[in-house]
Amino acid sequence: MAAIRPLFVVVGVGNAAGTGAAAARAFSKAGYSVALIARGQASLNALSEEIKSSGGEAAPFCIPSYAPGNFSSVFTSISSRFPTSQYSVRAALFNVGYAVWKPFLEVTPEEVQESLNTNVAAAFSFSRETIMKFKQNTIDAKNPTRGTLIFTGATASTRGNSMTSAFSIGKFGARALSQSLAKEFGKDDIHVAHTIIDGHIMTGDALARGTTSGLNPESIAQEVLLQSYLYLVNQEKSAWTWELDLRPAHEKW
Amino acid sequence: MAAIRPLFVVVGVGNAAGTGAAAARAFSKAGYSVALIARGQASLNALSEEIKSSGGEAAPFCIPSYAPGNFSSVFTSISSRFPTSQYSVRAALFNVGYAVWKPFLEVTPEEVQESLNTNVAAAFSFSRETIMKFKQNTIDAKNPTRGTLIFTGATASTRGNSMTSAFSIGKFGARALSQSLAKEFGKDDIHVAHTIIDGHIMTGDALARGTTSGLNPESIAQEVLLQSYLYLVNQEKSAWTWELDLRPAHEKW
Amino acid sequence: MAAIRPLFVVVGVGNAAGTGAAAARAFSKAGYSVALIARGQASLNALSEEIKSSGGEAAPFCIPSYAPGNFSSVFTSISSRFPTSQYSVRAALFNVGYAVWKPFLEVTPEEVQESLNTNVAAAFSFSRETIMKFKQNTIDAKNPTRGTLIFTGATASTRGNSMTSAFSIGKFGARALSQSLAKEFGKDDIHVAHTIIDGHIMTGDALARGTTSGLNPESIAQEVLLQSYLYLVNQEKSAWTWELDLRPAHEKW
Amino acid sequence: MAAIRPLFVVVGVGNAAGTGAAAARAFSKAGYSVALIARGQASLNALSEEIKSSGGEAAPFCIPSYAPGNFSSVFTSISSRFPTSQYSVRAALFNVGYAVWKPFLEVTPEEVQESLNTNVAAAFSFSRETIMKFKQNTIDAKNPTRGTLIFTGATASTRGNSMTSAFSIGKFGARALSQSLAKEFGKDDIHVAHTIIDGHIMTGDALARGTTSGLNPESIAQEVLLQSYLYLVNQEKSAWTWELDLRPAHEKW
Repeated sequence: MAAIRPLFVVVGVGNAAGTGAAAARAFSKAGYSVALIARGQASLNALSEEIKSSGGEAAPFCIPSYAPGNFSSVFTSISSRFPTSQYSVRAALFNVGYAVWKPFLEVTPEEVQESLNTNVAAAFSFSRETIMKFKQNTIDAKNPTRGTLIFTGATASTRGNSMTSAFSIGKFGARALSQSLAKEFGKDDIHVAHTIIDGHIMTGDALARGTTSGLNPESIAQEVLLQSYLYLVNQEKSAWTWELDLRPAHEKW
Repeated sequence: MAAIRPLFVVVGVGNAAGTGAAAARAFSKAGYSVALIARGQASLNALSEEIKSSGGEAAPFCIPSYAPGNFSSVFTSISSRFPTSQYSVRAALFNVGYAVWKPFLEVTPEEVQESLNTNVAAAFSFSRETIMKFKQNTIDAKNPTRGTLIFTGATASTRGNSMTSAFSIGKFGARALSQSLAKEFGKDDIHVAHTIIDGHIMTGDALARGTTSGLNPESIAQEVLLQSYLYLVNQEKSAWTWELDLRPAHEKW
Repeated sequence: MAAIRPLFVVVGVGNAAGTGAAAARAFSKAGYSVALIARGQASLNALSEEIKSSGGEAAPFCIPSYAPGNFSSVFTSISSRFPTSQYSVRAALFNVGYAVWKPFLEVTPEEVQESLNTNVAAAFSFSRETIMKFKQNTIDAKNPTRGTLIFTGATASTRGNSMTSAFSIGKFGARALSQSLAKEFGKDDIHVAHTIIDGHIMTGDALARGTTSGLNPESIAQEVLLQSYLYLVNQEKSAWTWELDLRPAHEKW
Repeated sequence: MAAIRPLFVVVGVGNAAGTGAAAARAFSKAGYSVALIARGQASLNALSEEIKSSGGEAAPFCIPSYAPGNFSSVFTSISSRFPTSQYSVRAALFNVGYAVWKPFLEVTPEEVQESLNTNVAAAFSFSRETIMKFKQNTIDAKNPTRGTLIFTGATASTRGNSMTSAFSIGKFGARALSQSLAKEFGKDDIHVAHTIIDGHIMTGDALARGTTSGLNPESIAQEVLLQSYLYLVNQEKSAWTWELDLRPAHEKW
């Protein structure tokens, strides 16, 4: 009987230089098959091909929008491509983000709606599908955790600020969800975590560090994700972390 | 020339025993005219009549739903009834709340949407109208604050928990908004505050206290609001509070 | 039978322009007799005389140092001067602060010790005496709270920062104490609160505001304390606040 | 020229089943030489021998008390045994804790003093010696962090509670220190982190997990430390964590 392969499902991998793509590469490198969900078919296919050409197993799942029904369909497709007889969803990442920085009085009702839909309602739907998958997994001494669901948050998830009213309402909401889930499903051996990792970690600061280290920024971003997201996934069950805040060494905070 | 009367605008006064109604009575008692906004015409009219019969000035503004456009219309109506030549909006309270306690997997997409619309999107629209009103006010030594906008929050505004996923996503969002506004408009002498005041303060615990004090629960609720919300409105400008957490003396926290 | 007068005990009133002195004046104005504790006899006597000449009742209690034994002695003296047959300690303020801003490597072991002794150990001793006094009070419908103990904290009570290592270790400790006490003695109808009120509120910012308002900074400081500390003392028992954060309207935070 | 070996310095390894000892074993296993500091000679020697017999390099440094002068002496001894020509202090752990759970009114002045001395003043002295060591280190692409200083905290570091007044004053203080240091020395490429890891993780819960996993509790404790403390030490410099909260999967929080 062949071993069951662990599957990592990630939504929000549109940007090849971003957190979602780096996480997909990191989990692939760590031995996971990866199911990639995003709205843009082209970049989705490119990432999938890239992972496969590096020796990993990946498949793209394009979603027309983040409406609840679409997540349900996408997970049906994932189950077809990665049947439970061979694969087990052990890790998932909600990496979608609608970011808007604007003075409060310039924010439109549409932007408010988009922030709530993309950052919160979509997180709710994705979490629902993920947790139902996790519930099907068995645990044993070697796999003591039924599954790990990670949210990519930002400083705006914990602090409202001038210019961030429309962004923070969404990011606070996703953080609330992640905390509720962590508390509700911990007893079922399902680990839910929330990371705070501002965009510049993946770009500007990594670039700065790359200059002196000889590494390129993308390698650094991937190294960060490899370390941190896999650390969360592999945490010993007697010592789980809900929130992990990551900041550049030289940042003033 | 007649003096300009201060006007208090409150949305969410549907329940005669709740925070919104108690706040309306408290501000009326403190010398404010009050504009009452809610979705239910009957209770709205009843509260308005009650305040007038106690010697206060009040008017009901029924809103069909909390969609953004409706707030804009309601504020136009408020301006007609309480023209700026005679009234100045100096205080406002967002007291709307859609509360739902359920295991995560039982929450429907409609409930998620309703929580985000009522708790967050409506707060955004109401804040927009309110702040535009405040911006028209002048300040002087006697009225150093242009206006005070208060949000009624709850414990679920700061902590996600089992059973509160659908509720907390909305309450976290409103809190994010209040903090962003406090930071963006403090420099314009506009004070935004967020209170944490769980429902039982207004009902069960007040009842318990009433038993021993001879006061009825409603008087206590009103006393709490009179104290706390007016304290926020009247805070000296060199010492403003953004968040005020109120808990029963005997609560374990 | 004469009514029992409420007594306010405050430690740390050395600076006539500071929070402690402003609080003493405020409580006197609100009808409390005041027991003043500090290390400097001259300023202590001056404040006591000032309050008496304004029609209040006050007495100075000089303490050689904030060692535990000294607090016990001072409270014995307070009980002699203000016997329980006529006075009841209903409010107390720990307003002592040893502030030091320095790069970490320049802090001496003596400064560490002084910060811990003055900010924490002294708070422990003062709280002990205060709470034992409160426990002797009776409660009824008119006086539902047995007593209120307030700590004057600062931003350094909640955030360590460059330059504040020696200061924050003490201020964090006092905050921990205040939270433990709030939780342990709430059930006994004893209210413990912690305020965050940086020095500049009482000086620089009040000065700035004074310029435009025609009030002098000292009046403003006193107004702030009158409002905020008495608000805490008078809070309805179904809605107590543990922590009250006060910031200038125009501060960036 | 021989390579410079990384040295890990830990204070508070008195209990063979505790966090300090587990951390020492973990860092030894990860290739560090270890300098062990504690007050009890016997258990110190036993741990040192155990590590050496497992193929590691270790040396015990007994300290008569945690008074500031003693830390200075101990670090001189460490420098003799592990000269900078061959060793470089790259990681350090302050793991000392004086825990006391008691009703507030039963806490003695001596317990207050002991909590402040052991939890805070000792942390200050140890940090001073450690940071001066780190400052001597060079950084390059392979060793981008000058050094990592970790504090073992607990839930009592962030929340005061009934029964924890004497304990929390000390744990809050150490946390304040760690945050100040993180902010002051991040710019010098020195990483300071604070972990929240309650004792039961290392004992009761690990035991419970051991029952089902076939691992003994000590292996689990060591696995947790291996994962978490080394994760902190090895974090990519563009993504450092100051605080890491670790809780059993089934804990209600």
